[in-house]
Amino acid sequence: MKKIVVFGVGLIGGSFALALKKAGAVEHVVGVGRTETSLLRAKELGIIDEVSTNVADAVQGADLIMLAAPVAQTGAILASIAPHLQPGTIVTDAGSTKADVVAAAREAFGDKIAQFVPGHPIAGREQNGPDAALADLYVGKKTVITSLPENTEQDIERVAQAWQACGAIIHRLTPQEHDAVFASVSHLPHLLAYALVDDIASKPHAPILFQYAASGFRDFTRIAGSSPEMWRDISLANRAALLHELDAYLVQLIRMRKMLVERDSDALEKIYANAQQARHNWSVAIETAERQSKEGGD
Amino acid sequence: MKKIVVFGVGLIGGSFALALKKAGAVEHVVGVGRTETSLLRAKELGIIDEVSTNVADAVQGADLIMLAAPVAQTGAILASIAPHLQPGTIVTDAGSTKADVVAAAREAFGDKIAQFVPGHPIAGREQNGPDAALADLYVGKKTVITSLPENTEQDIERVAQAWQACGAIIHRLTPQEHDAVFASVSHLPHLLAYALVDDIASKPHAPILFQYAASGFRDFTRIAGSSPEMWRDISLANRAALLHELDAYLVQLIRMRKMLVERDSDALEKIYANAQQARHNWSVAIETAERQSKEGGD
Repeated sequence: MKKIVVFGVGLIGGSFALALKKAGAVEHVVGVGRTETSLLRAKELGIIDEVSTNVADAVQGADLIMLAAPVAQTGAILASIAPHLQPGTIVTDAGSTKADVVAAAREAFGDKIAQFVPGHPIAGREQNGPDAALADLYVGKKTVITSLPENTEQDIERVAQAWQACGAIIHRLTPQEHDAVFASVSHLPHLLAYALVDDIASKPHAPILFQYAASGFRDFTRIAGSSPEMWRDISLANRAALLHELDAYLVQLIRMRKMLVERDSDALEKIYANAQQARHNWSVAIETAERQSKEGGD
Repeated sequence: MKKIVVFGVGLIGGSFALALKKAGAVEHVVGVGRTETSLLRAKELGIIDEVSTNVADAVQGADLIMLAAPVAQTGAILASIAPHLQPGTIVTDAGSTKADVVAAAREAFGDKIAQFVPGHPIAGREQNGPDAALADLYVGKKTVITSLPENTEQDIERVAQAWQACGAIIHRLTPQEHDAVFASVSHLPHLLAYALVDDIASKPHAPILFQYAASGFRDFTRIAGSSPEMWRDISLANRAALLHELDAYLVQLIRMRKMLVERDSDALEKIYANAQQARHNWSVAIETAERQSKEGGD
């Protein structure tokens, strides 16, 4: 690609740009953002070649536009791009939810919607900002492309190739499948971890409770250390799917509550044993996949 | 101490014996257990000096008896010790729940109850059995002594000194306080993690869900990799306190469900932010304490 434009030059957008540069897959990277400090820092770090605060200028002649700003800004950014979007430019994103992003894109782009190919890289770190960006953040990680019926296979392939140049493994789901899957394995666990820590912290004897919390608690609640603003946005953006998963989980907890009340030792052990076995199988499968992906990369 | 007897020579009991030996705090260690293979292995590894399958002989002249067998066996082991228990011998345990252990001890020991000083070391590893035992397992870790009104301060001090010789830091709670604290920061999180993995594993599209589970899910569910039998026993042994915590958590989830339904972005963010801040403060406090404990040990 000759030119790409990255909206949001932090961990996700910055790592995307760095990886493409390292792979020799792009000649010129333009960064667009709300805070000039981040943009200047990204330029200093060699993440971007050009800082722009003018969307109209920035998107001219771009092969690919990547949206990696906080999800809440997606609609506004797409609307600012739409009037200047040229044929031949593809727009993609890196948001953690997809149905809401697609709805915002349909509203902003109208009959240019075919040019928007949504995506979600499954990678992250605890740090944020341009300084956290890594050229190998996506190596061996999944990127889910949730293409639209309007997208051409050729455009989807161009987005896939950019991610593959970053080292990512491409998966494809519909936006609805994506949101249901991540509500289950990511968004609900985050809500549950936040709920537990807030519950404990709100008790009058919280200090004594925290004093005895050990390594199991630390791992269980690690995701409650994530950005509250980001997860508020994700929870609301994927509200319907999250409520669906939360309700299933509440049913499960109420079933288990009954087993405790009735001292139903066998039923409780069956759930624990099924969970332990399923987690073990998952863990083995993940490790095997990671080993194979590393061997393939050598 | 001249002689100690350890019932259960696996990770917990074996590490206790190894640590006391390393500290020169004991001359002779007798191991008692259900499986001869484990006892012979423990002797081979230098954890114990003598294998015994006869409780009456084993406990003669013991300064300290440590119960580190699975909690479900506690009552039976205490009953087997009671008729042979000599004045001057103290019995302690390492069980994860305390009120039920105390009840079993009262029943088994009757008017000898003053000789039972209950305890709970807050340490563990994923492995089990004599081969998993480590002389430094308890270094810098907490051991909670939940003494009884009948215990003399002198006897409590002897148990505390044994644990201190292992490098542990002594905390004191009543059995009821202990069970309430660990229901909150350990037993409930285990139940919640098992519940989530079983919930996901039971869905028809489980394979696709597990395929997209990433590092947040791995940490959140790590404790669901623990022994189902052990956690079934703990859940039932601490049933009343666990139900109390589970009910508070259900109230919390139902509150948060309402916030999602009503799109109450501020209320949701407040919970997430409070949890993030509380976890951050806890994490800093733990790291400071660990650093100080290491510096103190040098």
